[in-house]
Amino acid sequence: MNLLPTVYGLSFLAVAIAFAFAVYLHLWVKRQRTENKRIMEVSQLIHEGANTFMRKEYRILALFAGVAAVIIFLLLPSPIWNGNIVENLSMALAYICGTVLSAVAGKIGILVATSANSRAAEAASRSLKEAFLVGFRGGSVMGLAVVGFSLLGVMGVLMITGDATILLGFSFGASSLALFAKAGGGIFTKTADVAADLTGKVELGIPEDDPRNPAVIADNVGDNVGDVAGMGADLFDSNVAAMASALVMAQALDAGVAGANTAMVFCYAALGLIASIIGIAFAKVGKDGNPTGALNFSTYSTTAIFLVLTAIATALIDGFEWRIWGASAVGLIVGVVIGITTDYFTDDTRPIVRRVANASRSGSAFTVLSGVSYGFISCMPAMVGIAVSALVAYQLCAPMGSDYALFGIAMAAVGMLSIVGMIISNDAYGPIVDNARGLAEMGGLGEETIRIADELDSAGNTVKAVTKGFSIGAAGLTVISLLGAYLSEVNETLAGLGRELLTGFDIMNPLVFFGVLIGAAIPAVFSAMLMLGVDKNAQRMVREIRRQFRRIPGLREGREGVKPDYDTCIDIATEGALKELIPAGGMTILATVIVGFIGGPEAIGGFLLGNIVSGLLLALFMSNAGGLWDNSKKYIEAGHCGGKGSKAHKAAVTGDTVGDPFKDTAGPSINTQITVVSLVASLMSSLFVAFSLFG
Amino acid sequence: MNLLPTVYGLSFLAVAIAFAFAVYLHLWVKRQRTENKRIMEVSQLIHEGANTFMRKEYRILALFAGVAAVIIFLLLPSPIWNGNIVENLSMALAYICGTVLSAVAGKIGILVATSANSRAAEAASRSLKEAFLVGFRGGSVMGLAVVGFSLLGVMGVLMITGDATILLGFSFGASSLALFAKAGGGIFTKTADVAADLTGKVELGIPEDDPRNPAVIADNVGDNVGDVAGMGADLFDSNVAAMASALVMAQALDAGVAGANTAMVFCYAALGLIASIIGIAFAKVGKDGNPTGALNFSTYSTTAIFLVLTAIATALIDGFEWRIWGASAVGLIVGVVIGITTDYFTDDTRPIVRRVANASRSGSAFTVLSGVSYGFISCMPAMVGIAVSALVAYQLCAPMGSDYALFGIAMAAVGMLSIVGMIISNDAYGPIVDNARGLAEMGGLGEETIRIADELDSAGNTVKAVTKGFSIGAAGLTVISLLGAYLSEVNETLAGLGRELLTGFDIMNPLVFFGVLIGAAIPAVFSAMLMLGVDKNAQRMVREIRRQFRRIPGLREGREGVKPDYDTCIDIATEGALKELIPAGGMTILATVIVGFIGGPEAIGGFLLGNIVSGLLLALFMSNAGGLWDNSKKYIEAGHCGGKGSKAHKAAVTGDTVGDPFKDTAGPSINTQITVVSLVASLMSSLFVAFSLFG
Repeated sequence: MNLLPTVYGLSFLAVAIAFAFAVYLHLWVKRQRTENKRIMEVSQLIHEGANTFMRKEYRILALFAGVAAVIIFLLLPSPIWNGNIVENLSMALAYICGTVLSAVAGKIGILVATSANSRAAEAASRSLKEAFLVGFRGGSVMGLAVVGFSLLGVMGVLMITGDATILLGFSFGASSLALFAKAGGGIFTKTADVAADLTGKVELGIPEDDPRNPAVIADNVGDNVGDVAGMGADLFDSNVAAMASALVMAQALDAGVAGANTAMVFCYAALGLIASIIGIAFAKVGKDGNPTGALNFSTYSTTAIFLVLTAIATALIDGFEWRIWGASAVGLIVGVVIGITTDYFTDDTRPIVRRVANASRSGSAFTVLSGVSYGFISCMPAMVGIAVSALVAYQLCAPMGSDYALFGIAMAAVGMLSIVGMIISNDAYGPIVDNARGLAEMGGLGEETIRIADELDSAGNTVKAVTKGFSIGAAGLTVISLLGAYLSEVNETLAGLGRELLTGFDIMNPLVFFGVLIGAAIPAVFSAMLMLGVDKNAQRMVREIRRQFRRIPGLREGREGVKPDYDTCIDIATEGALKELIPAGGMTILATVIVGFIGGPEAIGGFLLGNIVSGLLLALFMSNAGGLWDNSKKYIEAGHCGGKGSKAHKAAVTGDTVGDPFKDTAGPSINTQITVVSLVASLMSSLFVAFSLFG
Repeated sequence: MNLLPTVYGLSFLAVAIAFAFAVYLHLWVKRQRTENKRIMEVSQLIHEGANTFMRKEYRILALFAGVAAVIIFLLLPSPIWNGNIVENLSMALAYICGTVLSAVAGKIGILVATSANSRAAEAASRSLKEAFLVGFRGGSVMGLAVVGFSLLGVMGVLMITGDATILLGFSFGASSLALFAKAGGGIFTKTADVAADLTGKVELGIPEDDPRNPAVIADNVGDNVGDVAGMGADLFDSNVAAMASALVMAQALDAGVAGANTAMVFCYAALGLIASIIGIAFAKVGKDGNPTGALNFSTYSTTAIFLVLTAIATALIDGFEWRIWGASAVGLIVGVVIGITTDYFTDDTRPIVRRVANASRSGSAFTVLSGVSYGFISCMPAMVGIAVSALVAYQLCAPMGSDYALFGIAMAAVGMLSIVGMIISNDAYGPIVDNARGLAEMGGLGEETIRIADELDSAGNTVKAVTKGFSIGAAGLTVISLLGAYLSEVNETLAGLGRELLTGFDIMNPLVFFGVLIGAAIPAVFSAMLMLGVDKNAQRMVREIRRQFRRIPGLREGREGVKPDYDTCIDIATEGALKELIPAGGMTILATVIVGFIGGPEAIGGFLLGNIVSGLLLALFMSNAGGLWDNSKKYIEAGHCGGKGSKAHKAAVTGDTVGDPFKDTAGPSINTQITVVSLVASLMSSLFVAFSLFG
């Protein structure tokens, strides 16, 4: 029996339910009461600011994507003059679809998030329970949209073209968007944050979120474009890449067995979406009123539901193998474990955050040193987790044949990403309640409301660290399977030319080694360029803020009716972010191309490995150290180690300022950088085979 | 004709000249006038303090080495119950020789350095030219001792046993010592530095090098044990490892060609020593009085002399191949280029240091962020350099056969390390003139003398950054060839068991991949443990300093005749350093053993690769960022960006405090960690082949 129609049907059904549920949640959020004029006004400004950013971003992206699509059409998967016009055209169209679907998901997420923030603020004046629900459900719309569109897109491309290789083009489209959304959004958010702090808190001594500060709206916009749209695009990208690489292998394996492996990929993805929907539907704060617990409980229950559903499917359906189920289960469980260990290093109820807070008593150098040290150590569990899950998945599936073993790793990645709908919901909750806190302050909703908003925000911060660990782990497993996809692409080209196939990439081969060393340097340089970009951009914005305080009479004194020019700040952050992003992104792609044309496909194999390994290490380090510093500062602000205004607090603020671009700009952008490079390599593999100096 | 006797003769001659020259230089330094009583007194205290540290260090090391020697005798290269008692005994004895010879070289270096410091201080009161010569010649004794003993040891082991594999034991001995000397010395020096600053400058407001501070002698001792003994042991280790791995390959290649390849290794090493001797003999400050220029000129001329001498040898001697000469030339030239690019990132006449100084105006977070960013970027040229030299060396020698190609990489490492005598001389010059500056201040030699000492010290700092870049590059190439040596060891065991040989380590093999990920995490955890160790140890010392100020009447006020208890501080730094080092070193060895027994020899191949790649990246990052911060602070202190006491200066001090353990403890210790792990892997390879879970 051919399983594919059934599974496609199931997937469509899941996507349809997800979309319907998203619409329901959106309407539910919209129905929440809004009364406070000031809040509505500011929320509207944030909404418009976010739209300004996204419009400009998408405009530049369209230009970039247009050029990339033309190049793809001309050259990929093989030069058009070799005759494969249809394949190249499909690839180019798939690429465009990848960018558009991810963009639409991001747009929807921002739309809902920026309308949920004000409602969450007002709900907080009623109860924590209600406010939690508004924040969480607002975020869930993004989660459902991302997973729905990614599954729909992958399915569409495969149904129309029937060729899994074309999915690499779709995936590359998603990656291109993610690069802009995550890295661009990351530069935007930290530009605004740093500039607002430097001029407001430091120079003028006015509080955070003070409406006199021209950067304050940009700062709130940043939370949305960085964490909602950026993180969504990042996980859209990882999810698509995981499915694409699994499907490339599944299709090769399926040659003789009626599509059971392909069906399995879709079935698991669809069941993951259903598990997320169930998890989202039942999420709520319990009697203990602990929002962190509620978010974590939803994640664990979604995990359990996924494991049960897939086990049932595997038991019922002929051709679904238990070993592969095991591989995906291992991937998911390791993902959850990585999240928990990340939590250990960044949660202020645990010892590490407290140690860094304590070290801050000796001055900021010790905040930085201890944070860097624990940040380095925090990489270990996640690296071991990824290593073990890859090894176990491989060993589990190896008895079925060596191709199945690699497929096992790909399915571990699919398993890890299966609950991505839930993960994004948790993550997008963060900026919504963060915004809500600012709005509650600006709208004068009173102490108790702010306290509730603070509690919700703190849960968002903790969960965000977990999400980041999870998404880095998922990216790690995904790129391992992309390495496999790259090898198949190279061998397909070699087979076409009648040349000897590669069995792998031997590190004793100096071409591979050459690639490894250069690939390893790329994430370091990439993240440095982003961080320096934040700095440069923040300097521009600082000049503008100072100009406004100098030129707009009454602004500094807070005279009634005098407003700063918020828009100019948003424009500066937007344009600067995109300007600073281009060289960093261009450098990574250029380095890939240069290494490929010097060392050929083997050097690129090494290049990808080096890139993955050092990328994972730096991404984990920067995300975790940043979260650690952030929460150490919060821990001190809660009254420990001398509390607010103490020497320790000043040191902790320095740590937090260092950590901000680490965790919100550079660290998580590395994920995307790795995926982009892997896909560029796969797509250009035939060119590297044909033309290279030493290869 | 058998070349070996001739080449051994040449090598012995070179070693003899080096030793004679070292004795001459030592006597020359001793002959310099010393008059100032106070200076002699303090110099004596530093000398005794250094001896205290080294005595304790060597005592613990003896214990460690004794246990290791017994384990080696029982198990390595293969378990003694398999019958190879003589081989195991040779290995154990070679191991002991490796530790002893390196220890002796370190002891000699410290002896001369701590007697040269006072003489350099007094010479500075006469002229810069004289003081430079005292500092440089004092340092040269260490350089000549290190190269002489390493060459002698390698030659001795090979002449006596005739088996290059035994050299791995000798090399492991050198590595064990380097781990203690470099990491232990690194913890010692920063413990004293941090504790002295925290209590003296910050709490009491007394100047640096103030004799009332109980930690001040420990601080000066630290410069010697960290930079003279530590760096010497590190380069002894790299030099031996490079020769050992080249000789393992050369011996395999020589089976049929009368030892030409083995002869070539020794010939090049001996000519490198001769080139260094010539360079050292002619080093002096020119009319322009620029000590940095003088140090650099010596390096470049030594490089040129080596290239000419080896070219002549290659032209004259039958069996010496031009291709291999090319490989070693490429290695050396790339080493120099890496040094120059490191200089670009850390020299205060270049833009980067100035940019970080400028960023400091906005506060310490920006000092840290910009330093981290440029530190990341600074890895790129060195990584590319190592990658290119490995690739070019391989391609140059590949036409002679694939075994020769790997030998080419090993010879590139030998070439890069050929001028190591000169490099160590430059490096050991640094702490001598640094000490001299402190002594000039304590001895009251006047403004002009201090200015001269400052100029000499600044040259030492700049050159130190170059040396570090160079030594990391050399370690990089060396461990690549150690990877080759490891593969040969594994295959020898497999051949003995009649099992299929490994052709290499394929990164698509999940065992290899598993190893890569875990190996990559090790340097991060290792360096974090060292940094946290410095912090813990400094806290202990801070408590002791506070106790002394509280308990010793008149100390704080500087009453005549009241002296602090310097020795207790030295004891605390010493014991703490060794205590904090053991877990870090143990962790790396344990991780190697665990990965080996889980994943077998293939996982270890990956483990070594991951370890090398992330180790190089982090070592370069930490060394360069540290040097950058240090020089940014000095740049501001020279009167820029507001000068001493400004906000920028405070921020730069934070940067420098972060950078100190980066560049003097963690960064350069990673070199040694990489070599230790590579050698443990090679030595234990037969055990991993015999017993492993998945391998």
